[in-house]
Parts: sequence; structure tokens; C-alpha cells
Amino acid sequence: MKALYFDKKLELRKDYPVPVPAKNEALIKIILTGICNTDKEIMNGYVPFNGVLGHEFVGLVTECSQLKLIGRRVVGEINVGCGVCSLCKKGMQNHCQQRKALGIHGKDGVFAEYVTLPIENLLIVPDEISNEEAVFVEPLAAAFNILQNVEIYKQDKVVIIGDGKLGQLIARAVSTTSCDLTMIGKHESKLELAQDFCKTMIFNESDDLENSFDVVIECTGNESALHYAALIVCAKGTIILKSTYAGDLKINPSLWVRKEIRLIGSRCGHFAPALQFLQEGKIDLTKLIDKIFFIDDWENAFKIAFSKGALKVLLKLTK
Amino acid sequence: MKALYFDKKLELRKDYPVPVPAKNEALIKIILTGICNTDKEIMNGYVPFNGVLGHEFVGLVTECSQLKLIGRRVVGEINVGCGVCSLCKKGMQNHCQQRKALGIHGKDGVFAEYVTLPIENLLIVPDEISNEEAVFVEPLAAAFNILQNVEIYKQDKVVIIGDGKLGQLIARAVSTTSCDLTMIGKHESKLELAQDFCKTMIFNESDDLENSFDVVIECTGNESALHYAALIVCAKGTIILKSTYAGDLKINPSLWVRKEIRLIGSRCGHFAPALQFLQEGKIDLTKLIDKIFFIDDWENAFKIAFSKGALKVLLKLTK
Repeated sequence: MKALYFDKKLELRKDYPVPVPAKNEALIKIILTGICNTDKEIMNGYVPFNGVLGHEFVGLVTECSQLKLIGRRVVGEINVGCGVCSLCKKGMQNHCQQRKALGIHGKDGVFAEYVTLPIENLLIVPDEISNEEAVFVEPLAAAFNILQNVEIYKQDKVVIIGDGKLGQLIARAVSTTSCDLTMIGKHESKLELAQDFCKTMIFNESDDLENSFDVVIECTGNESALHYAALIVCAKGTIILKSTYAGDLKINPSLWVRKEIRLIGSRCGHFAPALQFLQEGKIDLTKLIDKIFFIDDWENAFKIAFSKGALKVLLKLTK
Repeated sequence: MKALYFDKKLELRKDYPVPVPAKNEALIKIILTGICNTDKEIMNGYVPFNGVLGHEFVGLVTECSQLKLIGRRVVGEINVGCGVCSLCKKGMQNHCQQRKALGIHGKDGVFAEYVTLPIENLLIVPDEISNEEAVFVEPLAAAFNILQNVEIYKQDKVVIIGDGKLGQLIARAVSTTSCDLTMIGKHESKLELAQDFCKTMIFNESDDLENSFDVVIECTGNESALHYAALIVCAKGTIILKSTYAGDLKINPSLWVRKEIRLIGSRCGHFAPALQFLQEGKIDLTKLIDKIFFIDDWENAFKIAFSKGALKVLLKLTK
């Protein structure tokens, strides 16, 4: 089968073996996949990985011990825990020390014609949700995971720093709390994409927003933004750190201690709330798609996906 | 009166005017004071301040509109809020934007024969508590403040990194939760001081403690300790950042996001829980006193207070 294989560099292999599902696994024929910034990190060597890249997908089950799943359209949670440790037993497979992660660690990913995943990782995609929307379930679940990590109330003033893909999905997820939500970004055209869900502001350092927000969600992945977050968050407020990216971040401990700021790292989340949100059909995520490429054209796809200011780039596996 | 005045450098003034209490304030004759690391920061210019230094004290009320306070031994909370903003109204004077802080910001401190403070900041010291214990109420309240910022349960594994003054007080405060508490330090003699309150371990980087603790309390104020904290805290665990110190700290955002770590800055706290704890008489804080100096000998006092590994140094105002 065709597969985008990473081993120090990415290449399209045309004769990669179709994976054989284990007893608890399904074989899934990939329909559509999304390119994520984590893929970029892996390609830049921040995370050690050899194998088929990719973890955002929608596909069709073609082989499975549960017959009712065969032929169904599915998405799949990306962490595969050991199943026996205390974290797995608490439903925290995503923190299992022995876990594998689809296209990220120890398990071939989805930039290929077929992939295998444990049956328990799969969720059936309701008919109302298109492939172009379903492929967003993984990053949208990561956005909804913020609401698992911090309680946001209607009266809270919340700000998202960053108007990119991640910020856009987070705006849609956090808007479900009916809080007083603002997005600060640098691009008029992208801020427009969020205007149905929150107030928007062009970033201007001279605006006096000090101590203005109960919760600040940092989605830019740059250091100066984290410092800005610490300034605009109120005393005893919360900063959500969402981006996984390379390098170190500097924080000013005196400011953090004096204001008693809380910093919360937030990662991937469970798919069910995201799927439900899409099923309700209140938003059109396809506005966040930059371009769709066929896998043979993967080089152009990655070039655009990782270009500054790009929205979501998708790779399709069938013409 | 005698007063240790700071204006770029510290000096003993012998003719500093006795402060005149405002209508809502008491005049307090200082008995005993404590030298704190925050004093060192101020002297090193990290916080801009001109005036009488010092904020840890026990004293006697000599003038006050509330006659019942006159002649009573008191300690005093150090933040003086504006009294009218929303934070002050919520009892968060310590985060009021207009606040003054005793010997730290906008208000003369306690390294002097007399000080003034709002009556509402004062707490009467019960007779069971000695002056040598009462002078610890401010830093002990800061230690208890951790329990306001994070819920610690009996079944939680909690570790304090650092065996110095702050770590010692925190061990005593956190031990009241009956959690599974450990202190990691570098000094056998100091770890011994904590042995009645927690398990103790000599720091050894090769010990495999990865993902071992639900809560890590960082009291060393050095950057490598914060990185170590991020390693030994469990997934979704909490790191308490307690030290206010100069410079920036680096954190590895990928690790923090991947483990979904929470970082909570924790500062000074309300005095009542600390006073009550001392009144119960279960511990002897005087073991944490390194030496007591008369104010005239302030230069030696500060030299010892800021020497590596020093415990608490006190300054007394009367011979």
C-alpha cells in the first residue's frame, strides 16, 4: 500500500505492507487525514519516531471481530495504553507510561491506505458529519479537553491568544460555555473566522489589558505570548498552555508567584464531546480547511501545511 | 527611633521619626522581627523600594482607637489594600492593584522601634505563643497558603523539594493534611529537623522517582529543581511554585503539556490558620532559629541570614 514513512526524512513508499490487525484491533481503510503541527515536530526530530506518520483521520472499517463495525465510518482515539496499569484503569490511557500513540510513538499512523487500531479506540461517525468535518475530531477533542482541565463559568472573562487552526477550534469549543470570550490575533482574515463565536481583537501591545482575564489560553506557541498571558491574566487566574512545541520557555517566577497564577498544560482529549458537538451541526469547520491534496502530492501538501499562517491542510487517500 | 532604612543600600538610622498612626491604624512597638529572603531581593534591587525594611514581626500595640488592643501583643498581615476595589471586597487585599506592603512596597516596615498598621490587619497573639514563635506567623501563613491553593488529600503523595527555612515551615503546614509527605534535600542536619513531620530523602539525581508524586512543592528557588519537579510529578499532577526570586525560569513546554502538569504560584496567606496551629503547640519552631541579634548588630545579622544554608535569623529591637 501507499504510506508516508518517516525515518529521519519523510518519503512516500508504494509497497509498504498492509498492517494485520491483532485480535482486539480493526483494520481501517483511510479516507481522509489531517496534517498537524505535531507532525512537523516529529519531522524536525523533536520526538523520536520511525514509521508511518499521521494521526488525524476518518476511515472505513474493513476487518474486525465485531461484525457490526465492518463498513462503518470511524474516527479513532490515538493513544493505545497497556490496558493494565493504574492510569489505563482510570481511563487515562493518554498518560500510560507504556502507551503507543498513532503515528507518534511506537505505532504506524494514518498517512497510508490502511491502519490498525484497537476496537475500543474507535467511534462511529454519525451520518450527519461529513468526512471533511470528521477529520477534525482529534484536534477538536484536544480543544474540548481544555474544559476538562479548567472549569469555565458563564461569568468568566476568557481570552484565546492566537488566531490559527488551534485557536479557531478552541474558540468553537470554549464558546459552548457561554463565557465572555475574546480572541486576540494578528490576522484580520482569521479573526473573522472566529467572529461567530467570540469577540475578536487585533493584537496591540500598547492596549492596556493587564489583569483583565480570568483564563488565558495560549495557542501561539511562542515565548513572548506566554509572558503576555501572564500580564493579562488576573490575580489567581489560569493560563492554559496548549501548544506542544520545541525548545524551552522562560517564565518570570516573581510575577507568577506574586499573582499566584495557575499554569495548566492541556493535551489531547476524548472524542465523544467533539463528535457530539459536530453532530449538533452548529458550526461549519470546513471553513478552516486550507486545501485538500491527494497523497501522491504530499510534498506540496506539507509545504503549504507548515507555511506561516496556513489553515488546515488535508491529505486524501483515494482520488 | 532606630530604623534600618533602605535606599539603594541599607543603613541604621538612629533619628528616624516615629510614625504617626492614621485613624484606622495602630502604633506598634516592635519586639522581635525576622529576616526573610524577600528582604534580600529588595536589597539586591529586584523590587524597587525606599524605606524601612522588614515585614515579619511581633509587637505591642501602644496607640490605637480600639482601647482593648492597647498593650496587647500582635502580629500583622502585611498587605494594605485600597479597601474599595473588587479584590479588596473579596478579601483579596494581597492582590489589590493599589496595595501597599509592609517593608516591601509603599509602607515603612518593621526593622524599627515602631510601625503603624491598619487595625484590621492585626491579630492578637495568644499567651501560649512565645515571641520567638509568633515572629514565624507571616512565613508560616505563607506555608499554609499552599493548602488554600491546592486541595491535598490524605491519600496524596506529596514531596517538598528543599530543606531550608521555607521547606521546613511548609513541611509543618502540609503535614496537617496527613498526606504521604516526603522532603528531598541536600543537608542531613536540616532533613533531621523535618523528620517528625515527613519522610526525608537526600537528593540523588540517579534515584528513579519519575512520575512518583501527585503534588511537588518547589522551595529551592533554582531552575534545575523546577525541571526535576516536572520529572517527578505524575501526569496531571500539581507543582507549587513558592519562592519569589530573581531572574527567569526555563520550562520545557512539551513535557508540561504532554504530562498536563499544573503549576500554581503561591504567595503569602492569611494569618489565622498559622496562629491556630502555633496555639495548638504541637511543634517547636524555635528549632528553626539560627541566631538572634540586637538591631545595632544588623550587619552581622544580615550576613548570617543570607549565608548559604542559614536557618532563621531574628532581629530584636530591645536588649
